[in-house]
Amino acid sequence: MNISKRIDNMKFSEIRKFIPFADEAKERGIKVHHLNIGQPDIKTPEEFFHAINNFKEKTLKYENSHGIKELISSFIKYYKSININLDKDDILITHGASEGILFALLTICDYGDEIILPEPYYTNYNNMAKMAGVTIKSFRTYREDGFHLKNKEDILKNITPRTKAMLICNPGNPTGVVYTEEEVRLLCDIAKEKDLFIIVDEVYREFVYGTEKFTSFMHMENVSDRVILVDSISKRYSACGARIGMLVCRNKIVSNEFMKLSQTRLSVSSIDQIGAASLIDVTPQYLIDVNKEYEKRRDVLYEGLISIPGVSCEKPSGAFYIIVKLPVKNADHFTKWLLTDFNLNNKTVMITPAAGFYATEGLGLDEVRLSYCIDREDLKESVEILRRALEEYKKIFD
Amino acid sequence: MNISKRIDNMKFSEIRKFIPFADEAKERGIKVHHLNIGQPDIKTPEEFFHAINNFKEKTLKYENSHGIKELISSFIKYYKSININLDKDDILITHGASEGILFALLTICDYGDEIILPEPYYTNYNNMAKMAGVTIKSFRTYREDGFHLKNKEDILKNITPRTKAMLICNPGNPTGVVYTEEEVRLLCDIAKEKDLFIIVDEVYREFVYGTEKFTSFMHMENVSDRVILVDSISKRYSACGARIGMLVCRNKIVSNEFMKLSQTRLSVSSIDQIGAASLIDVTPQYLIDVNKEYEKRRDVLYEGLISIPGVSCEKPSGAFYIIVKLPVKNADHFTKWLLTDFNLNNKTVMITPAAGFYATEGLGLDEVRLSYCIDREDLKESVEILRRALEEYKKIFD
Ligand SMILES: Cc1ncc(COP(=O)(O)O)c(C=O)c1O
Ligand SMILES: Cc1ncc(COP(=O)(O)O)c(C=O)c1O
Repeated sequence: MNISKRIDNMKFSEIRKFIPFADEAKERGIKVHHLNIGQPDIKTPEEFFHAINNFKEKTLKYENSHGIKELISSFIKYYKSININLDKDDILITHGASEGILFALLTICDYGDEIILPEPYYTNYNNMAKMAGVTIKSFRTYREDGFHLKNKEDILKNITPRTKAMLICNPGNPTGVVYTEEEVRLLCDIAKEKDLFIIVDEVYREFVYGTEKFTSFMHMENVSDRVILVDSISKRYSACGARIGMLVCRNKIVSNEFMKLSQTRLSVSSIDQIGAASLIDVTPQYLIDVNKEYEKRRDVLYEGLISIPGVSCEKPSGAFYIIVKLPVKNADHFTKWLLTDFNLNNKTVMITPAAGFYATEGLGLDEVRLSYCIDREDLKESVEILRRALEEYKKIFD
Repeated sequence: MNISKRIDNMKFSEIRKFIPFADEAKERGIKVHHLNIGQPDIKTPEEFFHAINNFKEKTLKYENSHGIKELISSFIKYYKSININLDKDDILITHGASEGILFALLTICDYGDEIILPEPYYTNYNNMAKMAGVTIKSFRTYREDGFHLKNKEDILKNITPRTKAMLICNPGNPTGVVYTEEEVRLLCDIAKEKDLFIIVDEVYREFVYGTEKFTSFMHMENVSDRVILVDSISKRYSACGARIGMLVCRNKIVSNEFMKLSQTRLSVSSIDQIGAASLIDVTPQYLIDVNKEYEKRRDVLYEGLISIPGVSCEKPSGAFYIIVKLPVKNADHFTKWLLTDFNLNNKTVMITPAAGFYATEGLGLDEVRLSYCIDREDLKESVEILRRALEEYKKIFD
């Protein structure tokens, strides 16, 4: 009576081990700025709450496994507004992008099949792949390059006869990279050449800053049968707790097979689907304002960070994360120390060691991922805390 | 670029193929009584809607992956009321029982491992097992026995060195069986003898009728480390659309491993968890009334059915389903014919062929599953429709 090797091989969330230290710090009266989470502080549009308050049904019934009509039509409208034309069978409503990724892997990979993806990457992909019995092969991208793709050969050499798909996060978590049109094209070419599916996680689509241009894989004509788009309202509308995502695929064979999985878990929350369907009525200015706000935060954080001696990072173009090299040997130790031993006027910061985002053992040991999901004043203060903490840490541990 | 063998081996919902015929019938002005679904028509308690209308947060945040505290405490109270004492780490909130079953399989089974279960069984177990790469070995139970367990040998002979668990649905869908204390004890003894986990799906726990006694596996002392309980508010509180379920396990090693899976998909809907937490305030009379209502419906349906020539079935003791042998050769054909060719005063019924609930090819071809989730008048009318339909069907096809 043992647990499975599969679950034994999975990992707990990296950040979990620091939570008790953050809690203890708070108990000691220390204010902790959370630079560790991808949880936006922006308000969810009021339309969501109005819609659910107007829910008039007396019985919460299983909905269509595919998703409710109103929500699917609202997403068709949303995608149309960004020049992606879909019909209703192309969209499946999921429990967040999280479920969508699992469904995509189960549908195109058998046990022992492989997928390739650039490292560093969103850590949960590891467990999702293990749930589906899929092996991750990663090719490296570098902080110094702003995590842009290095070269075609690096990617090609990870592809084997068992590779079924590439999994691309664009804009990237934890990297903040936004791939150029050329990069997107390169990946599409490789997918065609090697006959791969492209699973693309675009949950940060609306978070692309300044003059940076975002190219969706859904815009690439010659791969429309091989792109599986994973999307979600979590970040876009600051509605992480709604657990509403979607899988979008124009390959009718694939999207039809998705139905077997959605029928097996019956349906997605009625109330959350109704709330989510109302978001199409949110003024377009909402997304513009949110984007502007994050851009300002990025600038505050980035400018602050590069002014700290020994810190290096590239300015991210999208999402709301930045990978930062710190002048420390062991970011894990520093992360804990910030919570247990340091404070500046009774304040400290919680950060995420970056090693967990790399597949290759030993990479990212002196890097951390910071998110800019808190307001600008707090970000400024966080930078000062980091600056002073690094000075003190150096004195003690160097 | 192919879909996986895994997904190819999964099945679409059996009932799906009949939906277009039901829709066409409705378009022709025919009223269709749905005896095919496990969707209660009972009202969801108002407490649920009040709670969500009182939600005051401005941002829908990811909740704790484990589930919100209020909901976990409310379930602790609920279980205490039925003499099951738990502490908070024993409970994990899931996206319905559906997600709970998948999590249980992933946690205790590796690819190619086996589970045993009595057939006929809830069809979705097939796809869940395939998602997890687990093989189902079933042992048969018989309509004539009211689907009670036949004998120990039948069960034992399906157990191999790869068997990791038994999966038991009690009360049973589609059978309506409620296992006696002796049967529960027998299964526990086998589990101990063969060192198996017991995954037990008790989503119909509150639906046990008359003087029938329900024995929860959670009450069995000597297996408390091997029982994984799958539960849900879907049926209990007629809240299928809320997608709130739970995994309950006193084996701390196992329940701790569940966290890896829950963290991977981040969290369960905030709003639905808040709604669900309020259900502890529902008067106990609600469940009593619902139980009484279903019992009356069962009686109406059962009495009606046995009065039809050539029909045989046993009186179910729990859940809200009954397996019925019809005087037809091919229940699939009859099901379709009811929708396409028959009506009684512009009314007909939609039923579910039972073959899909059996693992063994060729079983249940002349059986259907009926659910009694519609009101008594409609059930009476449905029985008359079936009686007349069978008469006419016999004339045409015999
Ligand atoms: C890259 C990426 N994909 C997917 C998700 C999960 O999103 P959802 O809330 O829609 O499940 C996240 C959440 O942080 C993410 O960063
Ligand atoms: C036996 C059984 N288990 C589990 C479920 C799924 O329940 P949930 O809505 O909690 O996912 C059902 C739904 O019909 C069922 O009949």
